[in-house]
Amino acid sequence: MIKRKGRYTTLTDGRINILGYAAVGSKKEYEGPLGNCFDKIFHDPKAGMPTWEQAESMFLKEALSIALGKSTLSSEDIDYVFAGDLLNQCISSSYGLKDFSIPYLGQYGACSTMAQSLLMSAITLASGAASFCAAASSSHFCAAERQYRFPLEYGGQRTPTAQWTVTGSGCCVLGKEKPSMPSVDAITVGRITDPGITDANNMGAAMAPAAARTIMDYFKDTGKTPSEFDAIFTGDLGVVGSNLLYKLTDESGLNIKDKHKDCGLLIYNRQTQDVHAGGSGCGCAASVLCSYILPKLETGELRSILFIATGALMNPTACQQGQSIPSIAHLVELSTGCK
Amino acid sequence: MIKRKGRYTTLTDGRINILGYAAVGSKKEYEGPLGNCFDKIFHDPKAGMPTWEQAESMFLKEALSIALGKSTLSSEDIDYVFAGDLLNQCISSSYGLKDFSIPYLGQYGACSTMAQSLLMSAITLASGAASFCAAASSSHFCAAERQYRFPLEYGGQRTPTAQWTVTGSGCCVLGKEKPSMPSVDAITVGRITDPGITDANNMGAAMAPAAARTIMDYFKDTGKTPSEFDAIFTGDLGVVGSNLLYKLTDESGLNIKDKHKDCGLLIYNRQTQDVHAGGSGCGCAASVLCSYILPKLETGELRSILFIATGALMNPTACQQGQSIPSIAHLVELSTGCK
Repeated sequence: MIKRKGRYTTLTDGRINILGYAAVGSKKEYEGPLGNCFDKIFHDPKAGMPTWEQAESMFLKEALSIALGKSTLSSEDIDYVFAGDLLNQCISSSYGLKDFSIPYLGQYGACSTMAQSLLMSAITLASGAASFCAAASSSHFCAAERQYRFPLEYGGQRTPTAQWTVTGSGCCVLGKEKPSMPSVDAITVGRITDPGITDANNMGAAMAPAAARTIMDYFKDTGKTPSEFDAIFTGDLGVVGSNLLYKLTDESGLNIKDKHKDCGLLIYNRQTQDVHAGGSGCGCAASVLCSYILPKLETGELRSILFIATGALMNPTACQQGQSIPSIAHLVELSTGCK
Repeated sequence: MIKRKGRYTTLTDGRINILGYAAVGSKKEYEGPLGNCFDKIFHDPKAGMPTWEQAESMFLKEALSIALGKSTLSSEDIDYVFAGDLLNQCISSSYGLKDFSIPYLGQYGACSTMAQSLLMSAITLASGAASFCAAASSSHFCAAERQYRFPLEYGGQRTPTAQWTVTGSGCCVLGKEKPSMPSVDAITVGRITDPGITDANNMGAAMAPAAARTIMDYFKDTGKTPSEFDAIFTGDLGVVGSNLLYKLTDESGLNIKDKHKDCGLLIYNRQTQDVHAGGSGCGCAASVLCSYILPKLETGELRSILFIATGALMNPTACQQGQSIPSIAHLVELSTGCK
């Protein structure tokens, strides 16, 4: 059902399908270009909860509930849920999932977590250890700002390279043998890459080399070319990271610019929404996957794509200690259910 | 190669083996009852590094290097490394592993991370996506204290129920078809359990219900009894959590007390080492597994055991916001190579 291809890539036989998926966002996401594509919008970023952290858990909870509903499964049917987020000790996931009573395997890949959760689900389904898995991730602008930078009340000035953490969540329910739904066809797990960036407000530059490396690993392993895909989506490189990605891939003779889209540039309107270099956060790739990419794969508007979510693996303590920011990127190849 | 048994358990065919393993500790671990069982001791808890966090990465790095050496493999041979730790955004793992260039999948299960990494390795090997995996985890007393409680310089008084975070790391390298080495025979993935404890200095009480639940799930799923095992090891319940575990399992008619040992009670001498309720931390279960349990499985002194690592899934922000502490426990059944 699954076999290695080259050093870093694993191919499935295309029988691992995304049975249901959901994206949940807030006010700013609603006002962006994908606003109408979300399954649910909490116009109040606190989602009726007393704290930002609890609100983020609520976004995740909603995404899982809606994805379960759309796949006509209940939490009882799910063998494992793979999830993670940006907050210290991944509390959005643990508090958000605790009422579901689904066996839980916490994942941490920073903003690459959605790709990681998806690929862990695919591996687990292929192993026979599960019949159904859920993969989810979330982030929240206000919770992330006070975690990584400053409390909002401080009113800190944002730099031009800064990105805006998406307040939202995405969730996929995966199973086997439902060929009318999008399938996971290949995965490439990333290696930690450290380009030496020390500016915690320039995540795009820190993450682009990891994205380039994983993309190049994938094409080398499979012998495919970018022209075989309708699109190549990165998670949240933003405008700085995307341009750097083109530079790095061009240098290696791989032209991906024509096919490339970045979830962080799709979710907001940079001209009108004051997000600086674009959107970011675990919830960025996750919610764009579930609001924009998967619906197009389901209808056949997109037939074959690569989804590469990137994550910066630092924390504020390490940055304060002067360490550079290591990053990672995981790739998932997805194809349409309309084959 | 792998099949479900009951709702929460997956059985392997016993052909997933731990090819090499290593435990690394520091001064306090050396002074404890298992001091001579460690592969390497850094008598300086900073391991020559400028910060506690970088020291923790160094412990992890050493554990992986030694485990690779003992399994006569190089980092090039390892398809995936599964690792995680207690620090915000799991930086001990990301900084500790970045030089190895092994595809990395960060795991977060708090102090249950070693069991989670082991079981993810087993699932991945069974799927065919990997030929060799590494599973690792680490913790550091000084880094954890300032992360979760107070900086050491503050000199805070520790409560009687508090546990002492192990400064150490453990790593296993896993592969297939090496029957002379200990095998992973079954796994039970835990569900998030919230008994309502809000005291962040009483991890044992917070985690015991999760341990009891996973242990009961396992015995219900498999139809086995505790008498079939030489020992049932929990990760770091300490004295408070262990007594609570007996109470909870007794109430359900399961007597595990005669077989039970806790890694947190094995690693230190509570009478002489001032650790209060026992050892704890990701590095506790990981280093006791690799210094004490696996050597006995390799020689046949232990023939069949259960290893249940427990984790508290809160963070300081959630505790300050008055939230209770959800916990989880993952179980791995291991048996001897001397069959």
